[in-house]
Amino acid sequence: MTGPDSDPLALLRSRAAAMYDRDPACQSAGISLDEIGVGRAVMSMPITAAMVNGHGIAHGGYVFLLADSAFAYACNSYGPVTVAQSAQVTFLRPAAVSDRLRAEAVERVRFGRNGIYDVTVTAAGGAVVAEFRGHSVMLSAPPPEEEGDARA
Amino acid sequence: MTGPDSDPLALLRSRAAAMYDRDPACQSAGISLDEIGVGRAVMSMPITAAMVNGHGIAHGGYVFLLADSAFAYACNSYGPVTVAQSAQVTFLRPAAVSDRLRAEAVERVRFGRNGIYDVTVTAAGGAVVAEFRGHSVMLSAPPPEEEGDARA
Amino acid sequence: MTGPDSDPLALLRSRAAAMYDRDPACQSAGISLDEIGVGRAVMSMPITAAMVNGHGIAHGGYVFLLADSAFAYACNSYGPVTVAQSAQVTFLRPAAVSDRLRAEAVERVRFGRNGIYDVTVTAAGGAVVAEFRGHSVMLSAPPPEEEGDARA
Amino acid sequence: MTGPDSDPLALLRSRAAAMYDRDPACQSAGISLDEIGVGRAVMSMPITAAMVNGHGIAHGGYVFLLADSAFAYACNSYGPVTVAQSAQVTFLRPAAVSDRLRAEAVERVRFGRNGIYDVTVTAAGGAVVAEFRGHSVMLSAPPPEEEGDARA
Repeated sequence: MTGPDSDPLALLRSRAAAMYDRDPACQSAGISLDEIGVGRAVMSMPITAAMVNGHGIAHGGYVFLLADSAFAYACNSYGPVTVAQSAQVTFLRPAAVSDRLRAEAVERVRFGRNGIYDVTVTAAGGAVVAEFRGHSVMLSAPPPEEEGDARA
Repeated sequence: MTGPDSDPLALLRSRAAAMYDRDPACQSAGISLDEIGVGRAVMSMPITAAMVNGHGIAHGGYVFLLADSAFAYACNSYGPVTVAQSAQVTFLRPAAVSDRLRAEAVERVRFGRNGIYDVTVTAAGGAVVAEFRGHSVMLSAPPPEEEGDARA
Repeated sequence: MTGPDSDPLALLRSRAAAMYDRDPACQSAGISLDEIGVGRAVMSMPITAAMVNGHGIAHGGYVFLLADSAFAYACNSYGPVTVAQSAQVTFLRPAAVSDRLRAEAVERVRFGRNGIYDVTVTAAGGAVVAEFRGHSVMLSAPPPEEEGDARA
Repeated sequence: MTGPDSDPLALLRSRAAAMYDRDPACQSAGISLDEIGVGRAVMSMPITAAMVNGHGIAHGGYVFLLADSAFAYACNSYGPVTVAQSAQVTFLRPAAVSDRLRAEAVERVRFGRNGIYDVTVTAAGGAVVAEFRGHSVMLSAPPPEEEGDARA
C-alpha cells in the first residue's frame, strides 16, 4: 500500500503539485517545478522576448521571479503556509533571450517559524547568473486544502 | 528655443522614453513610467490575475519587478548604461489582484561608478507593500543611441 | 511642572541615557550618544589604532558596530525592548585611524512589531563611509526598569 | 624540500599569519585564526563583558566583527588585497558573556574580481547565532609584502 499517507516524499510532491496548480504566476511565466524535496526545490524558466529590458538583457525582475519561486516551493515543502519576508539578490552575469535558467533552492537554517534559503540561478553549462538569499516566515495556519497534514 | 539640447529635464525625459520604447519587460507587465527626474523615477503597475502565486496574493517576484524597474530608470537617468549589481527587498504587506502598485525610486548616494537607490512600493492609500534597496554599477560605454549625450 | 512625565522628549532622553548607562559595548568602544529622537539617533566614534585591520584601514566590523548602535538606540526610542533581526551594510570609503565617524539612524517604516531603519555613516566633512539598513523586531516585554513606561 | 615555495597550503598559511600579525582589530578583540584554506577560514572569539549591549546580550556589532573577519581572511586567501564591499547579516539567537563564538567562512562563488562568501556563526554545541553573506572585491594591487606572490 503506497500513497501520500505512507510515503513522506509522495505527500510532499502532491502538496507541491497542488500549490503549483493554483499558481498562475509560475504557470504564466513558463516556470516549471522540476524537483522538490524537504526544504529544497528546483525550478526552471525560459527567457522570452517579453522578459527583456531596455538594455537588451533579461530583466533582473524575471531572474528574481524564478529564484523567489524556487525559494517559495522549498520553504513551503513542510506544509504550513510560509511566505517571503525579505530577500537579497546579486546579479553576476546577464541572461539573454532563449536562455533557460535553472534555480536551485536549498534551506540553510531554520529557527522557530523563520528560515533562510539560498538559491543559485544558473544558465546552460552551469554559469551562475544570480545568487539569492531569502528569509521566510511560517504563518500559523496551514493551507485549507492541507489541514489534514497540519498535525504532522 | 526649447528642446533636448536646451532643457536638461527634457533630455532626461526623452532618454527615459527611448529606454521605455525598447523595454518589452516593462511594457508587457503593464508597468508605466509616471515620473522621471535626476536619480529619481516613479512607475506603477496593476496586479493582474497572472501575477498571483499559490497563496492567492501577488507574487513577490512581480513586486520586485516593479521596484527593480523604477530603480533601473532612476539610475539610468544620468545617461551612461547602468545595471543592477544587487538588491535587497523586504515585503511588508501582501498585494492583491486589482491593486495598482506604485514604486518611487530615489537615489541615496553615488560613489564612483556605484550608486545606492531606495525604492518604496505602495498600494492605494499609501500603504507600504515593500521596501527595496538597489546597488547599481555604471558601465563605461554609453548606450549606442545616446552617444551624443555622453559628453554631458 | 516639567520632567519625564510631562515632556515626551525628556522621557525619551532619560530612557536612552539609562540604556547607555548599562551598555558596556558602546562605552568601551568610545561611542557617544549625541542625539536622540522618536525613531532617530545620532552616535559617533573615534577610530582607534585597535580598530585597524590587516589592510591598515578601519575594520568594517567597527564601522558596523557604530551603525548598529545608532540603529539600536533609534528603534528602542519607543520604549519596548527592540532587537536587530537583520542588517545590510555597504562600505563606500575606507576610514582611517583618528577619523571620527558619525552615524545617523532614521526610521524608514514600521509595520506591526517590525521596523526598518536607515543609517548613514560619515567621516569629517560629510563623506559617506557606509550605508546601513537594519530590520528590527520589538519583543513583547518592556525592559524591567521601564515597566512604568509600558503603558505609553 | 618543503616551504612556501613548494606547498601551496603552507604559502597560504604564512600569508594569513602575516595578515593576522598586522591586524590589531582581530588581536584586540581576542579573535583567533583557527583554520585557513583556499577561499575558507575559521575564526573564533570569546564574548567578553565589554561586548555586551544595553539589553544584556552580545552586541550584534561584535558578532558581525567576528563574521566579517572570517570573511576577510577567506577572501584574502588568494593573495591580492581584497576588501568587503557589502554584507548582509541575520541574527538568529542572542549570545551571552563567556560564550565562545566560532565563525566559518566559505566561498560561494567568484566572478571577475568579485566574490560571495557565506559565514555561519555558532555557539558551543553548534547552535547558529548568525548567518552572514559578504560581497568582496579584489583590488588590483597585491599587498606590498606579498609582491613575490602576485605571479601565483
